[in-house]
Amino acid sequence: MFATYEEVEVGATTTVGEYEVTREEILTFAEQYDPQPFHLDEEAAAQSLFGGLVASGWHTASVTMRLVVDGILNDSGAMGAVGVDELRWPNPVRPGDVLSIEVEILEKEPWREGIGVVPTRITTTKADGEVAQSYVGRVLYPMSGE
Amino acid sequence: MFATYEEVEVGATTTVGEYEVTREEILTFAEQYDPQPFHLDEEAAAQSLFGGLVASGWHTASVTMRLVVDGILNDSGAMGAVGVDELRWPNPVRPGDVLSIEVEILEKEPWREGIGVVPTRITTTKADGEVAQSYVGRVLYPMSGE
Repeated sequence: MFATYEEVEVGATTTVGEYEVTREEILTFAEQYDPQPFHLDEEAAAQSLFGGLVASGWHTASVTMRLVVDGILNDSGAMGAVGVDELRWPNPVRPGDVLSIEVEILEKEPWREGIGVVPTRITTTKADGEVAQSYVGRVLYPMSGE
Repeated sequence: MFATYEEVEVGATTTVGEYEVTREEILTFAEQYDPQPFHLDEEAAAQSLFGGLVASGWHTASVTMRLVVDGILNDSGAMGAVGVDELRWPNPVRPGDVLSIEVEILEKEPWREGIGVVPTRITTTKADGEVAQSYVGRVLYPMSGE
């Protein structure tokens, strides 16, 4: 998207998709990283706050990252990220949900010598329009000095 | 840890560990969810800001969650999480790093009817003492009404 910090356009938006989250993938991720009953077991999930099997929030974040990398980062000069603010999961991802993301450049500011930080809002939406996740990533870009 | 919101003790701390992050697991996670060169390829990683192969921040978050679930959540009444604030990765996780976590209950407040939210700081540390990750999770607990 942008090769250098100087090229980054505040206000730019992009949409990337799609990624279908299967029941099998929800279970595989949960078994390894988030083995809570509502991510692993249909019956326990039915009794939970979610009313059925849902993906781990960290799984939703990981799927989102795959869309960010394929659609944006690997065609950019981005050097990694310092961190993330305001990570929220307003609606859970359920088996078969198809996710897409919207990326919005919020601002840009110098970070360390030769590197700038670019707060970027990433919103993950399900096919039915519900927002599954949102956050602001603090992405690093190299300064060209030009 | 705590079955209900009423039982939650603000200021309580717990340590949980350990989890060794292997090179193979770093590559497997990155191939699926974060295929940036510094998570996949030793030579590209050597040229990056990180100076060598590092785990995806989302991988570090996922490993951390496994420690949180095994050590805390599955022995508690926790109902899930609304989201996460101030997620930071001050030092990258490299192949062979052994991670442990410290959990600190920061505060507690009502959320919706019958449910409270408990801001909880989760700090992930490597065996050499460097902090790999920190965040504040907003964890939900059921109110007993007692």
